[in-house]
Amino acid sequence: MLKNDLIVRTIKGETVERPPVWVMRQAGRILPEYLEIRRSLSGFKELVTTPELAAEVTVQPVDILGVDAAIIFSDILVIPEAMGLPYEMVEGRGPFFPETVKSSSDVEKLSIAEGKELTYVYDAIRHTRNTLDGRVPVIGFAGAPFTILCYMIEGKGSKTFNNARRWLHAEPELSHKLLDKITESTINYLKAQASAGVSLYQVFDSWAGVLSEALYREFCIPYLERIAEAMGELPGIVFAKGAHFAMRDLLSTSYRAVGLDWTMEPQQYRESFPDKVLQGNFDPCTLYASEEVVVERTKEMLSKFGSSNHIVNLGHGVYPDTDWRKVKLFIDTVKAHNY
Amino acid sequence: MLKNDLIVRTIKGETVERPPVWVMRQAGRILPEYLEIRRSLSGFKELVTTPELAAEVTVQPVDILGVDAAIIFSDILVIPEAMGLPYEMVEGRGPFFPETVKSSSDVEKLSIAEGKELTYVYDAIRHTRNTLDGRVPVIGFAGAPFTILCYMIEGKGSKTFNNARRWLHAEPELSHKLLDKITESTINYLKAQASAGVSLYQVFDSWAGVLSEALYREFCIPYLERIAEAMGELPGIVFAKGAHFAMRDLLSTSYRAVGLDWTMEPQQYRESFPDKVLQGNFDPCTLYASEEVVVERTKEMLSKFGSSNHIVNLGHGVYPDTDWRKVKLFIDTVKAHNY
Repeated sequence: MLKNDLIVRTIKGETVERPPVWVMRQAGRILPEYLEIRRSLSGFKELVTTPELAAEVTVQPVDILGVDAAIIFSDILVIPEAMGLPYEMVEGRGPFFPETVKSSSDVEKLSIAEGKELTYVYDAIRHTRNTLDGRVPVIGFAGAPFTILCYMIEGKGSKTFNNARRWLHAEPELSHKLLDKITESTINYLKAQASAGVSLYQVFDSWAGVLSEALYREFCIPYLERIAEAMGELPGIVFAKGAHFAMRDLLSTSYRAVGLDWTMEPQQYRESFPDKVLQGNFDPCTLYASEEVVVERTKEMLSKFGSSNHIVNLGHGVYPDTDWRKVKLFIDTVKAHNY
Repeated sequence: MLKNDLIVRTIKGETVERPPVWVMRQAGRILPEYLEIRRSLSGFKELVTTPELAAEVTVQPVDILGVDAAIIFSDILVIPEAMGLPYEMVEGRGPFFPETVKSSSDVEKLSIAEGKELTYVYDAIRHTRNTLDGRVPVIGFAGAPFTILCYMIEGKGSKTFNNARRWLHAEPELSHKLLDKITESTINYLKAQASAGVSLYQVFDSWAGVLSEALYREFCIPYLERIAEAMGELPGIVFAKGAHFAMRDLLSTSYRAVGLDWTMEPQQYRESFPDKVLQGNFDPCTLYASEEVVVERTKEMLSKFGSSNHIVNLGHGVYPDTDWRKVKLFIDTVKAHNY
C-alpha cells in the first residue's frame, strides 16, 4: 500500500488536493550524497548495473528533496545494449557507442530484447520498493524508439542528429524495421519493470525536436502508441522535448499524461484536451535565479496549469550545476500549493 | 541596377512570378570550389578577413547553384570580436572564445563597435557587388543580440546555453546592459553593410530556441525591434531557429520577413499575418533523400506557402555533408515553379 499515492491518483484523472511533483534527473547530478557514491565507483555504468546502489540513489531525492515519486536510476541506453550495441559513458562527454547501425545487415543483426537482459534494472526497482516501504510510488522509464534509433545510428549525442534523420529520409523502410525492433524490445522491458512494481512509467523522446510534424507522424507516433497500448492499464507519461509540432498528436495517443517543455504553454492544450494530464514545465534555468524569483515563477507556472490534471516537473532534466536547495524550494512551493 | 531583383520585390510585398530562393550557408561547406579555396588557407578566419576571397566564395553559389541572392561570406562572431572579445574557429569543433563575459566589469569593458572595426566585411561586400555586376542582390547579416550574448557568456557552442540563460534569470539588469551594447554595435555594423550596398539583411537568432515566450519577450524582441527600426527602409529578415513560441511576436515586429524552421507550419501564420513575407522552410535533411523525394517534398513545401510573400530557403543552414547537386535540384525545382 502506498502512503503517498498522489501522482497515481493524478495520472488516473482523480480529483486531488494539490499537484504531485517530481523532477527529471532528480536521482543524481545535484545531490552531494549522490556525488559521493559516484566518486567511490569506477563509473556511471557500475552504478546503473548494481541494484543496491541504483536503489540507494533512487531513494535519495525522496529523502532529501521530498518528491512525490521516485524514478528508478538507470539510463535509456540500456535498451540498445540489450539489443546488441553496448554503450560507454565517457566522463564529461556523455554516451558513446563503439559500434553503430550503418546498414541493413546491422539492423538484421540486432536482437529483440526479451527484457531478461536487464535483470539489474528490475532488481533495482525491487530494492527501491523495499527501501521506500510504500512512502511514494516508483516510476519506470524507457527511451522512445526514435530517440533510441538516434543513438544507435549516431553513436553519440549530436545537436542535429543528421545521420539519424538522413536514415528516415533515405532509408524509410529500414528505419521502420529498426523502430519496430526497438519498440518490441521496449515493450518487453517496460512490462518487466511493471512486474517489478513500478506504478507508472515515462517514455522519453529526448531528440523528438529535430523532426517535423510529418516525420513525427510517420516515424514516432505509431511506435509510441504501440507501447502505450501494450502497457494496458499501467498509466504512462510521454515526454517529447522540443516537439511543439507534435503536441496535439501526442495528446491524442493512449498515454494518460504528456510532458511539456518550458517553451510550451499549457493553456494552448488545456481546452482541447481537458481530460489529459499535463506534466511540466518549469524552466530548469529559473533555478539559477534568486529564491524570491524561484518561488514567484513556480507560482506563476502552477496557475497556468489550472487546478487539476497536472503533474509538476521541470521542462527538462535538472542541470548538473543547480543548487539542490533551489530544487527543494521549488518542490516545497508546489507542496504548499492547494487547489 | 539589378538584373534579378526577385527577392527585393518579394520582400517589399510586390506581386512576383515565382518565389525567390537562396540557401542558408550556401557560401561554403558543400561546394568543391569552396573547399579548394579553404584548403589553400590557414583557416576560416583568413577567409573571412580577406575581402577578395570572401567575395569569391560569396559569388560561387550564384554561379554554381543559381540562387537568387548572394549572402556575404562572414560570421556572426565578428561582432563580439569588434567589441573586444576575439574568437577562434577550431577546425571540426566550431567557435571558441579564449575570454568570456563573466562579471559586471567584463560587460563594462566591452566597447560598442562603431562598425569601422569590420572594414573587411564592407570591402568584401563591395568586391562581391563588383563581381556580380548586378546579377543578383547581396544580403547582409548579423547575429541577434541574444545569440551573441550566448557566445560571449558561454565562450563556445552548447546544447542548452545554461550559463547564458542563467544570466537572464540571475542577472537580468546586467543582461539588459550587455544586450544593449550588442544591439548598438549590431546597428552600426548593419548600417555600414547597407552603405556598402547590401539590398536586404538577415538577423540570425540561432539559439532562440532555448528560451521561452516570456524570456523572449523580455530579452529578445525589444532589441530585435530596435535593430529593424534603426535600419529604416532597408528590408530585413529575422530568423529565430526553434523559437516556435515567439513566432507571433516576431511576425508583429518591423521585419518585413520572418524565417521558419522546418518544424513550423506556414499555414499557422498565413492567415493572421497575410502581409508578412515568410522565409523557409525545407528540412535540410530531406536533401539526403533520393532525387524524386527531393523534388516531391520541395513542391509540397511550395504549396504550403501559397502563391505570394514567400522567400524559399531551408529551415536551417545546409548540412556540410550534403551533395551540392541535391541542393541545385532543390533550387531548380523552385525556379521551375510558377505562381
